[in-house]
Amino acid sequence: MSHIHAAGGIPPGMDAALHDGEVRVGGDARQRFHDARGYGRPLGGDEIALAPVEAAHLLYRGDLERVDGMGFRAFLTSQGERFGPRFLVYLDLRDRGFYLSPAVEGWVQPSTGLDAAELEELDFVVYPRGKGPTDGAVAHRIRVVGERTDIPAASLGDAVVAVVDEEGDLTYLETTGFDPSGETAVADLEPTSGTLLEDRVLVWDPPGPFHDRGFYGQPLEGRAAAFDVLHLSLVEAAYLAAQGLLELADGGGVARLVDRGRAVEGERFDRRLRAYRALRNAGSVPKTGFKFGADFRVYREVESVDKLGHSEFLVRALPHEYVFSPRDLALDVRLAHGVRKRMVFALDGANGETTRWLAVGRLTP
Amino acid sequence: MSHIHAAGGIPPGMDAALHDGEVRVGGDARQRFHDARGYGRPLGGDEIALAPVEAAHLLYRGDLERVDGMGFRAFLTSQGERFGPRFLVYLDLRDRGFYLSPAVEGWVQPSTGLDAAELEELDFVVYPRGKGPTDGAVAHRIRVVGERTDIPAASLGDAVVAVVDEEGDLTYLETTGFDPSGETAVADLEPTSGTLLEDRVLVWDPPGPFHDRGFYGQPLEGRAAAFDVLHLSLVEAAYLAAQGLLELADGGGVARLVDRGRAVEGERFDRRLRAYRALRNAGSVPKTGFKFGADFRVYREVESVDKLGHSEFLVRALPHEYVFSPRDLALDVRLAHGVRKRMVFALDGANGETTRWLAVGRLTP
Repeated sequence: MSHIHAAGGIPPGMDAALHDGEVRVGGDARQRFHDARGYGRPLGGDEIALAPVEAAHLLYRGDLERVDGMGFRAFLTSQGERFGPRFLVYLDLRDRGFYLSPAVEGWVQPSTGLDAAELEELDFVVYPRGKGPTDGAVAHRIRVVGERTDIPAASLGDAVVAVVDEEGDLTYLETTGFDPSGETAVADLEPTSGTLLEDRVLVWDPPGPFHDRGFYGQPLEGRAAAFDVLHLSLVEAAYLAAQGLLELADGGGVARLVDRGRAVEGERFDRRLRAYRALRNAGSVPKTGFKFGADFRVYREVESVDKLGHSEFLVRALPHEYVFSPRDLALDVRLAHGVRKRMVFALDGANGETTRWLAVGRLTP
Repeated sequence: MSHIHAAGGIPPGMDAALHDGEVRVGGDARQRFHDARGYGRPLGGDEIALAPVEAAHLLYRGDLERVDGMGFRAFLTSQGERFGPRFLVYLDLRDRGFYLSPAVEGWVQPSTGLDAAELEELDFVVYPRGKGPTDGAVAHRIRVVGERTDIPAASLGDAVVAVVDEEGDLTYLETTGFDPSGETAVADLEPTSGTLLEDRVLVWDPPGPFHDRGFYGQPLEGRAAAFDVLHLSLVEAAYLAAQGLLELADGGGVARLVDRGRAVEGERFDRRLRAYRALRNAGSVPKTGFKFGADFRVYREVESVDKLGHSEFLVRALPHEYVFSPRDLALDVRLAHGVRKRMVFALDGANGETTRWLAVGRLTP
């Protein structure tokens, strides 16, 4: 941290005063702060209006000395809810060399294409490096949350969530739509039959392509085994049964498997089955994500199990109304990042059927 | 998988029959299965009793042909709840070259030192490689759970939890006690004062050693900053206030900070503060674990922030009655493993005050 007490550089007579939640500054503020460095909203003449977070930043740098008699400390603590986290994010992004505006009409130009409803969802609009408010381009749409703030899944998809943790450190999470489709085609599987064993299905003497080409199930291992057994998860079995490729030896099919799934994991089973089906139908291959704490790990292309590459993304299937805790989200994203996969959420649509795919990743702005 | 149909190797006349949930086998079973390969419990003479999981394994290998007329498939599906997961774990451990016994008196010898109450909590007792049931040594105490089985935290600490996921893959989680103590001594801090800003505390012109030596707080960054500000989390501030090292400029101390903590995160705040205090008092330095989805990351030795090494373990503070889901546990453990830290849980004691430290890690048996 630098300790230049820069107050001496402030021209005498530059008064800054609060008006309706804005800070108005005259003198050469328009040229010094707005034109040269992207702060504020021009009011006509040399005067500009600063958003409180902009004024706080100028106070912190010593570019402004006081606002209505308040120095940095008094001004910062006079502001309302969420001001601390918003200030920390503003400070960090300025330090990274960006110009940014509070997501408020008048600060953000219509040339950015952002309308009032979009701005309502955001805290800051960040311009590309080297660009400013009047250039019409947007690098990041930023939403600021504290680590204890709930984040409705339905609100994510086109913003960067800047999470301010309890020690004031920042994590930027980029949220975008996602295309889960893959290149895997599995044709010509022969129907087979299996035995339901509590919450799994065993297929005896399975046709080879089930696992080798379709990557369904796991062969039971065992040195010197006298039997060939393929172990299917309930979700794999329910999908295969619905495709007409599996029946249960002692009777029943899809309905019995889905009933068992619901009995052991409730409506989460239906949700996972929907995501599983959507992935398979899109040409991707989901396998259990248990070791990663996820519902599925997904391979986009499986030519054969012998030539299997790494799975490319992890999926967690969530209900439409799901609300993330930033800490859980950070955990999922960190883990996925550590194993070089993308973290993807399969969100039920409002009607409970269609799936919305949401990718969340770490961003270094 | 091998496909030796070994039924031909079974001596004629070796009858296996169910008696009170055991499988009794005569012929040369004692020599072939018990003495040479660690299966079963001697009944006198050449007869032994096999536990069902042992009988299933011998059927799977083709070493037994039938039990009461049932082959492998019929026998496996005739068994009750949890038999599938237990069989998969037994098979895996045998494949890894271990002898193991079901955790039942008669199978497990008193020379192992395991009493009936301990066996009650377990599924299998695994002997060191090259050792068997009569050697008196134990390598692993195994508990088998499905990925959907709840695991009470209070039940963990001296067993390996073998989690069978929905596709039949296994994850072994070793659970042990843990000593969280460190080597950090921070003396001679001068008391200071701060300002409570919603859910964080700012210290203006902080004494250098607060952060540089004690690793309390994070300095507010900012190029050309005109002010020196240290950002404390509520839990850091509450701890420092209780030590007489921090007061709030506008009045109040520990009680006000704890009240604010409870207002923003409920009883989790008290739990985290207890763990924080226990760690600091033990000479370790906790900092936020947010980026890892944990409550804290912990440094055992901090000489100065300039010479900071990597944090050594992650901590999640949990209530006494906490119940793990295997998937969440797998997620925490996998993440910690990926960043080369241990995953540690700080569990409130039954009285809500003392802390029990539980480490959970991946094990490859």
